[in-house]
Amino acid sequence: MRLVIVGGVAGGMSCAARARRLDESAEIIVLDRGEHVSFANCGLPYYVGGEIAEQDTLLVQTPKTLRAALNLDVRTGHDVIGLDAAEREIVVRTAAGVERIGYDALVLAPGATAARPPVPGLGSPRVRTLRSVEDAVALRTRADAGLTRVVVLGAGFIGVETAEVLARRGVETILVEYADQVLPPLDAEHAWLVSEELRRLGVDVRTSVAAERIVGGSDRDTVIFSDGARVETDLILLATGVRPDTAVFEQAGVECERGAIRIDEHGRTSLPGVWAVGDATVSADPITGARRPVALAGPANRAGRLVADAILRPGSARPLPQPLGTAIVRVGELTAAMTGANRASLLAAHLPFRTLHLHPNQHAGYFPGASQIHLSLHIDPADGRILGAQAVGADGVDTRVDVLAAAIRSGMRVGELIDLDLAYAPPYGQAKDAINLAGMVGENVLDGTLRLWDARELDAVRASSLILDVRTADEVATGMLPGALHIPHTELRGRLEEVRAAAAGRPVRVVCASGVRSAIAHRVLIQSGFDSASLSGGMLTLRATLGARADGVLADAAPVEGAQNKNKDKENEQR
Amino acid sequence: MRLVIVGGVAGGMSCAARARRLDESAEIIVLDRGEHVSFANCGLPYYVGGEIAEQDTLLVQTPKTLRAALNLDVRTGHDVIGLDAAEREIVVRTAAGVERIGYDALVLAPGATAARPPVPGLGSPRVRTLRSVEDAVALRTRADAGLTRVVVLGAGFIGVETAEVLARRGVETILVEYADQVLPPLDAEHAWLVSEELRRLGVDVRTSVAAERIVGGSDRDTVIFSDGARVETDLILLATGVRPDTAVFEQAGVECERGAIRIDEHGRTSLPGVWAVGDATVSADPITGARRPVALAGPANRAGRLVADAILRPGSARPLPQPLGTAIVRVGELTAAMTGANRASLLAAHLPFRTLHLHPNQHAGYFPGASQIHLSLHIDPADGRILGAQAVGADGVDTRVDVLAAAIRSGMRVGELIDLDLAYAPPYGQAKDAINLAGMVGENVLDGTLRLWDARELDAVRASSLILDVRTADEVATGMLPGALHIPHTELRGRLEEVRAAAAGRPVRVVCASGVRSAIAHRVLIQSGFDSASLSGGMLTLRATLGARADGVLADAAPVEGAQNKNKDKENEQR
Repeated sequence: MRLVIVGGVAGGMSCAARARRLDESAEIIVLDRGEHVSFANCGLPYYVGGEIAEQDTLLVQTPKTLRAALNLDVRTGHDVIGLDAAEREIVVRTAAGVERIGYDALVLAPGATAARPPVPGLGSPRVRTLRSVEDAVALRTRADAGLTRVVVLGAGFIGVETAEVLARRGVETILVEYADQVLPPLDAEHAWLVSEELRRLGVDVRTSVAAERIVGGSDRDTVIFSDGARVETDLILLATGVRPDTAVFEQAGVECERGAIRIDEHGRTSLPGVWAVGDATVSADPITGARRPVALAGPANRAGRLVADAILRPGSARPLPQPLGTAIVRVGELTAAMTGANRASLLAAHLPFRTLHLHPNQHAGYFPGASQIHLSLHIDPADGRILGAQAVGADGVDTRVDVLAAAIRSGMRVGELIDLDLAYAPPYGQAKDAINLAGMVGENVLDGTLRLWDARELDAVRASSLILDVRTADEVATGMLPGALHIPHTELRGRLEEVRAAAAGRPVRVVCASGVRSAIAHRVLIQSGFDSASLSGGMLTLRATLGARADGVLADAAPVEGAQNKNKDKENEQR
Repeated sequence: MRLVIVGGVAGGMSCAARARRLDESAEIIVLDRGEHVSFANCGLPYYVGGEIAEQDTLLVQTPKTLRAALNLDVRTGHDVIGLDAAEREIVVRTAAGVERIGYDALVLAPGATAARPPVPGLGSPRVRTLRSVEDAVALRTRADAGLTRVVVLGAGFIGVETAEVLARRGVETILVEYADQVLPPLDAEHAWLVSEELRRLGVDVRTSVAAERIVGGSDRDTVIFSDGARVETDLILLATGVRPDTAVFEQAGVECERGAIRIDEHGRTSLPGVWAVGDATVSADPITGARRPVALAGPANRAGRLVADAILRPGSARPLPQPLGTAIVRVGELTAAMTGANRASLLAAHLPFRTLHLHPNQHAGYFPGASQIHLSLHIDPADGRILGAQAVGADGVDTRVDVLAAAIRSGMRVGELIDLDLAYAPPYGQAKDAINLAGMVGENVLDGTLRLWDARELDAVRASSLILDVRTADEVATGMLPGALHIPHTELRGRLEEVRAAAAGRPVRVVCASGVRSAIAHRVLIQSGFDSASLSGGMLTLRATLGARADGVLADAAPVEGAQNKNKDKENEQR
């Protein structure tokens, strides 16, 4: 049995290692066109930034260690240029020439390459990518030699991570994104927080802008943008996404879908004896059903293992799970993470959903270092199934998104989050954890106890409703929606007639800082016969949703009512 | 509708707050014998230690804020001394005398009080507890005034937390536990790591010891222990557990079980119109079925909310979930956490289980700050259901235990952990997260790909088997099991005949540092016809299991084979 694997990083190497553990007698050959296999792909930005000090650290395994530990035949500098499925052979070009290698089973794990948008001048030697150890070494060497200004094209994960580390190094960094926000997979209200943090780090963030042309110069290149701006720069980092590296295989008859390899639930391609895994394969989103390649290390690693099972234990291998696309990124002092479907993908799939926003502390508010997690969940309004979740914050974001990823995977309904026994002690959580609170809000929404309005509906709400701001006077002084009635929630029960008069038959839409007090106020109002709803996530979510518009919308705000409440209420985080 | 709630901290106050949100018209009276309600119970040790600087910080809510926000009638200094269920009245003693208060619905949330073991001299004024804000203020005042030595009786959560903060303050702290380990809910191999950390902090940890007598003195008391030791001390902190504070209610006919109130799935007691929540109630362990009170803030808070639902929305209230007993504690630089059943409770319930031990990094090994999570899972050997999990480590422990708590709650099988899409970027996780790896090990064990032996079987294994140590020579030089054969795993395939000769027909039991390389070696051996098994968790788990015995067992070890391998192998964390 000879197993040949094309590509020796995440999916390919996981497949090889698992295959060896299942079968000592198999001949296992791993081919990679690069100099290195099993290198720390996701660590490249941190090597550029210097947090990972040594280049060797990036080399998790080498052909030598893989031979010693797992008896793998790893061949670097082997570029696969053809596949002869009828003969069960692949064609490989090496420094020594072209050779053919036969296989009994073939696993394609070629990964993806940097997408190259049609920008004139992109061939300049000052345009770089960050896909390999060599790329990272070159970029760091260049930065060490003195790099004053870098333009990063594309604000996806790699673009943001690289912009962050360059800014930390003191390099003037311009981060350019064609979409209207950084990190397009994040919902806008979360992406705004990331943008603000990037700006705090000194990154010049420019969204809704594309590079139109790159003009080479002797000392620097000039990038000309779609908004007319021209920027001279030492270096241009191309990070506008990736595309599956599959041309050779598609040509050989491997069925593809917009360039990504089609596989069945066990990783089989359309050709007998040929499997595929990783960034080059297409899979279906388990929430929306959308078909797309997922370029993430975790799913690739896990799929590699299952493909080895499928080849060597064909009867009992589990099917490949559909990746949820859970992802996380560090940006300065913040962490941003997401799992499951985002707003755009739910809208594209025409799936009904409701969005919950919360801003609970990551741990007990009375314990030092408490900070808010800006958390949102999309849920199915019919049955409460959790469709997706996102969070941004200084601490505790990874924990909550991981728990929600597990909840989504197990098909949990939002109300079931209430009952999760999560670890609580003051340094770690709250007796009612952020996750439990999300469950309570969701249950309240589903059973009608709570009615939410969304910051995205602001214009319509302002046109039709009385906005009631139940924050304290001090809070209101920092900015209020013009025309809102201000009554602190602690005074509401005694001042309902003022609300009735101001509403004059219109619905009442309540606002507070984060949505806790407005929910209490909503309960008071609804039981007094008002048509009421509470702003999901409060002013925090409203400001993040408005983004750059927020100051304009809130600028001319002044409290309608001048109560002298000097103490900001402690929010009673009860749901 | 008048709802009276006895006890205004976790469960009682959650019930009151929820009840108000459901019903604006209800009269809601909360009675508490203490000076404070809704105080930060779990924060008391950190106030003593000074991390929480201000006493006010502990007072999350006051009767005034609760009146303002939720229109609650909160009465402190109200000690309930009787219950007249026939008349639907409770009897209360206050500074002003005794009064009777009628109710339509009554919720008992009296909590628990410090257990007082029958130790002569326990009445000394130098014996203190840490249950109230007043206790915490008194203890901190005493510490500020100069406290040179404290004896902490009981190494449960409060005892350990308080010992930790006292040691951090520079107080000589002696932590005494009757059981043979600190934190009895932790399995021994994890508790040992906590003990070692406490010692590193300067705490004098004494297990398998009880206080036999306390002799009052003029300047100090003397504690006489069961091992004959005598310790003079400025102060004795009693932290030997709690017992439900239910005498008044039991006397009034509320059915109890070893002092804890019996409730049905909606929190109803045996008396009509009377519900109960929190530390004073008994519930069934969802894994073992064992019935016991659970003294944890999280379950109490969540149950309080559901009891309000049961009273005010009797048709639609969800049943109270059975608490898993998830708990977490900070000890110096370490975090220890657990969820579900531990070894002792599984043994007591005569449930079959297998234990998996892993020591994966919390994030990518190549990223700075990587540290190991010492993780164990108990699984059902028949179907792979996860029965319990525990972890100790410097970082990432809370995340993994929270995910496992969610997995247990949703009834996940261990193999399903493989497919969890957890958030991965180098600062946060690994492409194969600790949780995924636990799933892989579990699946391997269940399908026979991996056979484990447990450190607890050491003596039997040494008597019957060849122990094969596959670590590097450098690692082996730090301590090896006497009589073991040493062959680095990278050389094993070429040296199988040496193994065969040394085994002389005996089974081979493989050992490495953490169980990764020994699993690879096991696969090599089993496919060559050996009776083989891999030590679960490797030498790390073996040392922690042996605890104080480890140095003795490993002391006279010397490598049988003297290979000069200077490089510690990178463990190939593949499963």
